[in-house]
Amino acid sequence: MSDRVYLYDCTLRDGAQTQGVDFSVADKTAIARELDGLGLDYIEGGWPGANPTDTAFFAGPPALQRARLSAFGMTRRPGRSAANDPGLNDLLQARTAVVCMVGKTWDFHVTEALGARLDENIEMITDSIALARTKCEEVLFDAEHFFDGFKANPAYALRCVRAAYDAGARWVVLCDTNGGTLPDEVEEIVARVVDTVPGSHVGIHCHNDTGNAVANSLLAVRAGARQVQGTLNGLGERCGNADLIAIIPSLAVKMGYTLGISASDMTRLSHVSRMLDERLNRAPQRNAPYVGESAFAHKGGLHVSAVEKDPRSYEHISPELVGNHRRIVVSDQSGRANILARFRDIGIEIDPADPKVGHLLEFVKAREYDGYAYDGAEASFELLAREALGGLPKYFDCTSFRVIDERRWNAKGELITLSEATVKLAVNGTKVMAVEEGNGPVNALDAALRKVLIPMYPQLGAVTLVDFKVRILTPGDGSRAVTRVMIESANGDGDHWTTVGVSTNIIDASYRALHDAIVYKLYRDGVPDHTA
Amino acid sequence: MSDRVYLYDCTLRDGAQTQGVDFSVADKTAIARELDGLGLDYIEGGWPGANPTDTAFFAGPPALQRARLSAFGMTRRPGRSAANDPGLNDLLQARTAVVCMVGKTWDFHVTEALGARLDENIEMITDSIALARTKCEEVLFDAEHFFDGFKANPAYALRCVRAAYDAGARWVVLCDTNGGTLPDEVEEIVARVVDTVPGSHVGIHCHNDTGNAVANSLLAVRAGARQVQGTLNGLGERCGNADLIAIIPSLAVKMGYTLGISASDMTRLSHVSRMLDERLNRAPQRNAPYVGESAFAHKGGLHVSAVEKDPRSYEHISPELVGNHRRIVVSDQSGRANILARFRDIGIEIDPADPKVGHLLEFVKAREYDGYAYDGAEASFELLAREALGGLPKYFDCTSFRVIDERRWNAKGELITLSEATVKLAVNGTKVMAVEEGNGPVNALDAALRKVLIPMYPQLGAVTLVDFKVRILTPGDGSRAVTRVMIESANGDGDHWTTVGVSTNIIDASYRALHDAIVYKLYRDGVPDHTA
Repeated sequence: MSDRVYLYDCTLRDGAQTQGVDFSVADKTAIARELDGLGLDYIEGGWPGANPTDTAFFAGPPALQRARLSAFGMTRRPGRSAANDPGLNDLLQARTAVVCMVGKTWDFHVTEALGARLDENIEMITDSIALARTKCEEVLFDAEHFFDGFKANPAYALRCVRAAYDAGARWVVLCDTNGGTLPDEVEEIVARVVDTVPGSHVGIHCHNDTGNAVANSLLAVRAGARQVQGTLNGLGERCGNADLIAIIPSLAVKMGYTLGISASDMTRLSHVSRMLDERLNRAPQRNAPYVGESAFAHKGGLHVSAVEKDPRSYEHISPELVGNHRRIVVSDQSGRANILARFRDIGIEIDPADPKVGHLLEFVKAREYDGYAYDGAEASFELLAREALGGLPKYFDCTSFRVIDERRWNAKGELITLSEATVKLAVNGTKVMAVEEGNGPVNALDAALRKVLIPMYPQLGAVTLVDFKVRILTPGDGSRAVTRVMIESANGDGDHWTTVGVSTNIIDASYRALHDAIVYKLYRDGVPDHTA
Repeated sequence: MSDRVYLYDCTLRDGAQTQGVDFSVADKTAIARELDGLGLDYIEGGWPGANPTDTAFFAGPPALQRARLSAFGMTRRPGRSAANDPGLNDLLQARTAVVCMVGKTWDFHVTEALGARLDENIEMITDSIALARTKCEEVLFDAEHFFDGFKANPAYALRCVRAAYDAGARWVVLCDTNGGTLPDEVEEIVARVVDTVPGSHVGIHCHNDTGNAVANSLLAVRAGARQVQGTLNGLGERCGNADLIAIIPSLAVKMGYTLGISASDMTRLSHVSRMLDERLNRAPQRNAPYVGESAFAHKGGLHVSAVEKDPRSYEHISPELVGNHRRIVVSDQSGRANILARFRDIGIEIDPADPKVGHLLEFVKAREYDGYAYDGAEASFELLAREALGGLPKYFDCTSFRVIDERRWNAKGELITLSEATVKLAVNGTKVMAVEEGNGPVNALDAALRKVLIPMYPQLGAVTLVDFKVRILTPGDGSRAVTRVMIESANGDGDHWTTVGVSTNIIDASYRALHDAIVYKLYRDGVPDHTA
């Protein structure tokens, strides 16, 4: 049997069920691109027709290089033909290469929740998959509550998945929908399934309600399943789905299976995990397996000397394999390696012995102590690096700015909110100023900056502010709270870059991020130093 | 073989290794009492002599009712007798009923890290345990790196644990010190061990570096081990230890083993988990298995009606068994069932047929279309509901506000950023106004609002802004972008509530969220309508 295991990402669908998570279309597009770059085999974009965001996403999905885009939906309802089922039509009209259709395999659910006959449910599965096969390259059958169903009525559960396979489903995915199945049960039941449906057509979809979603997924593969479904960082409703970030290295590095993810793709794992948290505007989990900030952290003393003598003493793998690094308290070796790795990322060649590396390291550490985060703000990091190494032009100086926000009733008795920004800059020795209105303070500030700068730097006209996120870094600190703003800018030509600003004042933090966004664009375009 | 499984808690020792965790003696005492009340069999208090806190803890340990207190230490060093080993003496002088001694079982570690002969290491284990047996009721041997050792040299690893058992160790604990062993390996290796040492004397100690610590612990028990070591909430260095909070219900409720924890003890599990986070002053993990706030939360409308029809549909156990409860989340996918369930949660009795329900549902959906998210902003949802049903007092009217943010160089040549807010309100027919400065616009607006309102509503003095989050909901929309602000407020007495505001202007959105935060507090305190 082949040792190739296929990975199917559900972050954009199951992940969107996470409490407090609310993806925009831009979020979904950006995450899909990251997943594609990592080397996932399938990316589920969402459920067309279920909500406006998913419908909009499928109306203009991103072009994927390596992964296949999948749309999720349901098998036809009882008492109507597949062709006349509105939900099924919404799904097929998304025109994705792959569709994944959920159906029932638990007899109690067929009769109680669905109110259908057991045979009728088999027909619903068969019809729906047969129809989908005529429209898509690949059809997946998502066997909801499969493990509970198997425990209640193994014969019927197996009949359902076999029917799906016979109807042409490329994959039959066994879902532990309630997440209550334990590892030994999963291994045993999957082993029974692969006697009925070849393992090369069997997938596993686990939830983490008992804290076993990762183990259940790995044991299902050992039992013969060859597709694993999960989400980035274990996003998902209740206790989350199986965490692909934790599963991938165990499958590839420890168990020796072949994935679409190469060894060099694997080194981006830590970045992809943190990118998602930045997008969700939440702090990355320090103790996350493989990729967490603490995953390879060693406190001083015995561990450190043992690790430095032989890493096998307290490290189960080499952190570099997953793009993480060893953190040894009171030693900046890890920091230095980190800086050099980031230099390589942005294409700066430098001799590790160059004293500038040490200076930049100290500077970055001070900045990060203040609350700057350069994971997910590569543009700001590159500017910091270029500045430290010399050779970053000075395009303008901001001498002062003022932003006024006002909410009042106007003459017509309408409630209006107005933002107005005034900026004063020195460009090339000349003092220039402008005032602009905006729909908010950051927007007004952005508008005023552009009004002053575009005449001198026309290429800024193409730059748009795509997204910005704010996080209070010291909650509970009341009026001393430090605020971090991350701004994502776009060029119109698909080029995106993210910058960061930190201050106790959100407007000031926003200005710093806006400043970096503008300077990065000018530097990348090779604009010469005006003040030189 | 007996189905009694013994639980050994390492929170006070391994847990203290967690990055950012620093227990005081008072913390350790309080946590030990909670663990004792829960029905753990063993509580490891720490490592006497290793640090002042642990030494102080063992100088005056809490009186335990049900659990036995254990002290951790090392087997004697090479080249000296057990009686003359200072570390071993510190350990035994703690005079605990139980001691746990760590020793080597990985040949590479014996020779490299310890610089001892393989036979010498066996003698060190034997002597140390024999001596400890003369001073304590129970001695445990903690087999460091056992799984790596077994893979490298099974015969030697087994010889070490057999020697410990023969010397009188009540328990031989197999440690996956690096946390890199996968579930199938643990099950297989433990099965091999119990041929050499009876399973009723074998324990398991796992770390979560691959995200499998819980599964590894459960599979070790299936393979015959009868003691499980772990920590509350999976505290521990790197990726943490096995999470006892997740292991306990699986062992007792799902696998049918007998624990020292009774069914009624089990209902305290959620409380014990949250108590620890309170002590560590960190937010409880929402998605924690069994005990997390989201563990039994239902978001999708279909799920909700199914769960209300039959909980087995989407709940793997009854939340009450572990002292948790079902939570219905109002969200984009909201159906009528969610709204009614949320009404019950906030204590609103309403006839499902009441047309107001339909109106509110439409209103919520319209608001959510505008970008409001009531998933995670329950306070704003309650206000919305109370208003829709009538009977929400009007505490004040905001006639206007103005916020100025300025960044400039002051007379001393220092760069300063200043925020100033002016608010004008009508309270009880009187016009009141105030101006305040803040470290940012929202902080200034908050300060000005309090300055006006606290004289009339003194209870607002206790309210603090704990956290706020900002998102652009329509990135790419340029100047028509909609911003959502979520504000979390606290009362000082542990009461927290979250409110939401949406507007094209971040300051306006912040004002709306601040407004709800204030009104919610006043309503909850039963403050009468001032304008009535």
